[in-house]
Order: sequence, then C-alpha cells, then structure tokens
Amino acid sequence: MVIGLLGLGTIGSGIYEHLNKRGDIRVKKILELKRHPGFEALETSDYGEILNDPEIDTVVELIGGMEPAHSFTVQALKAGKNVVTANKLMLSHHMEELLTLAKEMGVQYRYDASVGGSIPFLYNLARHRTADTLTALSGIVNGTTNLILDIMQTDGRDFDDVLKQAQAEGYAEANPASDIDGVDAQCKLAIASAVAYQKYVRPEDIATEGIRHITGRDIIHFRERGWVCRLIVHSEVVGQGVITACVEPTLVAANSTEAAVKLNNNTISVTGEYFGVHTFQGQGAGKDPTAFAVELGLRDILDGVKPRMNPIPEGYARVYNEKAGHRYYLRTAAPVNVPAEKVSQDVYITAPMSVSAMHALAKALREADENTFFAGIRE
Amino acid sequence: MVIGLLGLGTIGSGIYEHLNKRGDIRVKKILELKRHPGFEALETSDYGEILNDPEIDTVVELIGGMEPAHSFTVQALKAGKNVVTANKLMLSHHMEELLTLAKEMGVQYRYDASVGGSIPFLYNLARHRTADTLTALSGIVNGTTNLILDIMQTDGRDFDDVLKQAQAEGYAEANPASDIDGVDAQCKLAIASAVAYQKYVRPEDIATEGIRHITGRDIIHFRERGWVCRLIVHSEVVGQGVITACVEPTLVAANSTEAAVKLNNNTISVTGEYFGVHTFQGQGAGKDPTAFAVELGLRDILDGVKPRMNPIPEGYARVYNEKAGHRYYLRTAAPVNVPAEKVSQDVYITAPMSVSAMHALAKALREADENTFFAGIRE
Repeated sequence: MVIGLLGLGTIGSGIYEHLNKRGDIRVKKILELKRHPGFEALETSDYGEILNDPEIDTVVELIGGMEPAHSFTVQALKAGKNVVTANKLMLSHHMEELLTLAKEMGVQYRYDASVGGSIPFLYNLARHRTADTLTALSGIVNGTTNLILDIMQTDGRDFDDVLKQAQAEGYAEANPASDIDGVDAQCKLAIASAVAYQKYVRPEDIATEGIRHITGRDIIHFRERGWVCRLIVHSEVVGQGVITACVEPTLVAANSTEAAVKLNNNTISVTGEYFGVHTFQGQGAGKDPTAFAVELGLRDILDGVKPRMNPIPEGYARVYNEKAGHRYYLRTAAPVNVPAEKVSQDVYITAPMSVSAMHALAKALREADENTFFAGIRE
Repeated sequence: MVIGLLGLGTIGSGIYEHLNKRGDIRVKKILELKRHPGFEALETSDYGEILNDPEIDTVVELIGGMEPAHSFTVQALKAGKNVVTANKLMLSHHMEELLTLAKEMGVQYRYDASVGGSIPFLYNLARHRTADTLTALSGIVNGTTNLILDIMQTDGRDFDDVLKQAQAEGYAEANPASDIDGVDAQCKLAIASAVAYQKYVRPEDIATEGIRHITGRDIIHFRERGWVCRLIVHSEVVGQGVITACVEPTLVAANSTEAAVKLNNNTISVTGEYFGVHTFQGQGAGKDPTAFAVELGLRDILDGVKPRMNPIPEGYARVYNEKAGHRYYLRTAAPVNVPAEKVSQDVYITAPMSVSAMHALAKALREADENTFFAGIRE
C-alpha cells in the first residue's frame, strides 16, 4: 500500500509516525504548501504529483474544510484511488456525490474517522445494519463543548472564562464557532444518520442549538435540580424515510451515562430492533486517537476488509421535528408566551413542546434578548 | 450459505426466526433430541446428517456446556465447515486447540457472541489490534450478577431475596453458581484477554471471586461511603507475556461509568497505547441480542469479511497477581491479621494489598467464617 498524504498538520504527522513504525504502509508523497524539516524529500505543493502517480493507490485527506478538500477528493476517486478522511464538514455536505463516485469507481472511500474520532462508531453502525434495523442515534459527539460543560458543571465557572482556558490549552480552536454553535455535531449527526438509516441527511435540516449562551447562573439552577448539561445529538426514525433530528443542550440526570462522560470524551448510542441499545465511548479527537482511526481504515483496505458502507444510501430523509417533544429549561429576559412554569425572574420550565417550536421560539426571543438560552429536559 | 443448527433453545429459535425473515441464509438441519412442532422436517438427532452433508457449510453451535459441544465443534472444523458459537465455557477451555484447528483447515471459527452478547466487543478488539497495542481490559461482563447488585443497591434488599426474584423472572438460572461465583465472567475474561494480548489465558489462572457472600448490610456500608458494588473483570499487561487478571466485586464511585450500568447490562473497556480507552455497552445476554450477535458472525462469513482474529495467539500468558494492589472492603467474623482499619465489629478497610494476597486471605478466613465477603476498592 502506497499513500499520498494531504496535509502534515497534527493528525498527518501522527499518522506518518504510526505508519513508519510498522513499515508495511508507505507514505510516498505529502502535499504541503510549506516545507517541514526532515520531510523535504516527500513534500510537494503540486497535487498532480500524487494524482498522476500510479504507484499511489490511496490518498489520505487531512486538509479539512470544504475546498480544496472536496475537489481533491473527487479527483482522487476519479483517478481510481481509495480515499481515507476525517473531514466531517466536507463529507456531510457532499456525501451523496462522494459515496456514489466511490461506488462507480469501485474504490473505497473510508470516513470512519469523521464521527467519534477513534471510537469505531460508523464502522459498527454499518456492520450492525447487516443483521438488524437501526432506529435511533443519540450521544455526545463534540469533545470541545463537553469539556467546557464539564468544567462549568464541576467548577461553577462562567462560559467565557472556561472557553478561554480551553483555547489556551489547545482544546478549543481560536475560532470556536463550529464547535460551540453545534455545527460540528450537526455534521456528525448527518453522516451517522445516513449510515444508520440509508437515507442521506442534509446537515442544515437538523435543528441545531449550541452552548454559546449558557452561563454559570444556569449551571447553579441545574445543580439544584440534580441535572447535568450536555450537548446531545439525537435522531430517530419516525416514519418511512422520515426522521427527527436535532442538536441541543440537554439536561440529563446526574447518574446518567451522559453525565459520566467527562472532559473531552464522546459517547454515542445506537438503537436496533433486535440488539437493543449499544453505546460506544472514548476520545473523540486528538492526534493519536484520530491517527489510530485513520490507520484502522487503511489497514482494513490493506487486509481486504470490506467497509460495510454498501449498499450506499438512496435519496434524502425528510426531517420532521414537529412532533417529538419534551420540556425545556428556558432563560430569557424577553416576554414568554408559551405554557411554562416561571421559576425565577427570567427562568422558565416549559410544558412539553416540539423541537421545531422551541428552536423557532428561541429565534424570536433573541430579537429582544440575544442571550436567550434553552436546554431540553431528558424526562 | 447453508446452516446446520445445533440446539433449538431460546437462542437457536431466535436465530431461526431472524434468518427466516431475510432468506439469504438457509437453515437446512437442526440437531435436537426432542421434536418441536413445525420443525419436524428439519430436526434430527443424528449429528452425522449435518456433518456429512456437503451442502452445509456452516455449523452454529448453541448447545452450551463442555460436551458434546466440544467434540461436535472439533468434528465440524475437521469436516471443513465454519463454526459460529456463543459458548464461552467450552471455548475458554479449548481455545488453543480450536483456533489452531480452524486455522489449519482454513475455515472461520467465529466466537464474537461469546463475550458481551450482542456488544461487538471481541470483533473490535481484534480489529483495534491491527493498528494499536492493547494493554488492558476492564468491565462488567455478567448481566445476572449486575442485575442482582443493581437491585440490592437500589432497594437495599438482601442477596437471597433478590436472587430468588431474578430466578423467578428468568434473569438467573436455576443453578446460578456459574454466574454468582464469577465463573462465567472468568471464562469471558480469558477469551477477551487472549484476543487482546495474543497469548492464551487459562481461566483457572484468573483470581476469581463472585458475589455469593454479599449482604444487604454490606450495601448499607457502601452507600454511606458513596460506593456502588459491581462485579468487575480486569486484566492488564505487566510484562512480556505476563498479565494481571482477576474477577472481583469492586467498589466504584457512584458517578462512575460502571455505576451507571443498570440491570443486566454489560460494559467493557479496552486500553490502547494510541487510542486511549474505548468503552462498549449494551445488553450482554437475552434471546434477540445473542441471536443478533450470532447473525453478525454469519453475515461476516457470507460477505467475506475477515474475522480479524488472525494471527491467532501463540503460547500462554503468565498470570501474575502478586504486585497489582489496592485497598479492600472486608467483612468477616474471623480474626484479621493484615494491616487494616476496623470500621465496625466485623468490617475492615485493608491497607493496599495484592490481588493474590487478598484471595488467599479470604480462603483462609473462610475456614473460620464461611460467609466472609470482600470487595476491591477502586481508588
């Protein structure tokens, strides 16, 4: 197996180190704009050198972001090369195109590492599907927000303070919007739902709320009621080709599985008609765990293990969030005109309401109070 | 794919139902001593009819126990048939012979369902091993004892009372010794350790203590200290070909992952040098979950997915429990002559001591008080 590596950042250099220890998978070329000491002989800034090298059978895409990751992936697949990626943003927006192309070309497109980092979640979803019908997904898939929420819950500190610490320590990015606004989790839920239900899911169809507006005062309320706040993704089949799908701060019991997920760990559960509920936990990000996940994909290809991602999904799921409903914790200085118990000057516990109604309400309330915060209550 | 099914009990009939729904895997013969209405045409009491049928390529062994399960498995492998099993007792005592035979014959021996029921644990252990070095295993692998401990902890009831309820409801067997004495967990730890560390492990080498002697009064002590009792298996590499391995009632924090494992669920974690800790949770037993696990193995064979169990282990691990040590909760009416804090008339918290020293001490104390109980304390 001969590899062309796109990007020699943290993950890329991790993979290079891992593969070099074994020696049976060779990195022949590395696409990089700048040169790294010791790697000059491998590095090129011309993608054509990888694309047109017949010896390179597999491209590992670690550039991240939309472009040029998307066009490089398309070109590699069209050139008959396998592609291994951890790029959830790009994949979630081009899943149908890329899976269809890989199938047409008869090559493997391995995206196991795009959801849950090193946790073998997507692979097992695809494998489970061969012997059962999958009906629901739920869990914590963003390590940065879990770290922030866990520290806030434990130390009682405020959001901005904890976010700054996480950035200083390298657990949150300089521009943390994708994590804290739930976009990263949204992309992951779209990908995992497509694998589970065999229908593509448009990320923008998923009702998504992040944790940007949570405060230390909210946490005090949660503690008093025995709740722990986690950013939870959830999707569930509610009809033929119809699913409910959302990303929401969610209040869970202190002795629940999710509350026991500390720091930047992930947990994700899948429900099947026969096997019940399976839960997978581990580190969802980081150099070594992600490098491990990418290497697993490479070794599957090397050893002739099928990705179990076939058959690929057909068509798009309709996301219907009008019915699924639960109570919400709502903090807002704006007037609230839905059935709710007022528990303090600006805090309400709503009656059960649908996901779409709550997300629409929050949008409206933010016209008057942009710091409005809400969280679903797990009954 | 054409199947010979050995045993039409709960799991066997579950598998038959599952396979019949899809139709691409055909059950041609069922080995049973008695006849079941509607199955007369498939049932035989002559194993030769399965063994000598060239159309039957795969045998599903669901007899359980040592014999004739062991000799039937050997005969099937020698006849060039794949074998799929959930039989942990037999496998754990004949693992080297059966894996070697399957390898020699070039057939698949799938025992995924033998540890963790439907949880895809062994399969992922074997797959993880291809990209990392595995160093430790830990978890709850016996659903019956977890159910009993969880009910005792929640309701404060006594052991005999809860065991009788579990038996009446079908969660514990009429002869519960294998579960409550830790033998079932011991077998599973031996199998999982062999897959993880590539050395066979003799079940009898694993220091094993069950929950037969726990009382409601112990539980009251645990609650006061914020502990929850779980029956935990643990093994860890401590040197080249050397592991520590034990099954022990263990006291964990109330907000730990293990404490959140309710009723008859299982949780099992694996540690790798790169990926960190991965945890898998789900139902460890039951008709549909186990049937699902067996069907996964069948579908892997059908679809040409390698079991990743190769290379098979070489040689036996030396189990060394003299060093690994922690404090113990110890309740005994016999005189205690090890460093320990006496917390009530017959309850002690020992100083840290090795697993082998504690298990030997309990054996000695039971000469004077056969109801002596101990549990490791997770620090």
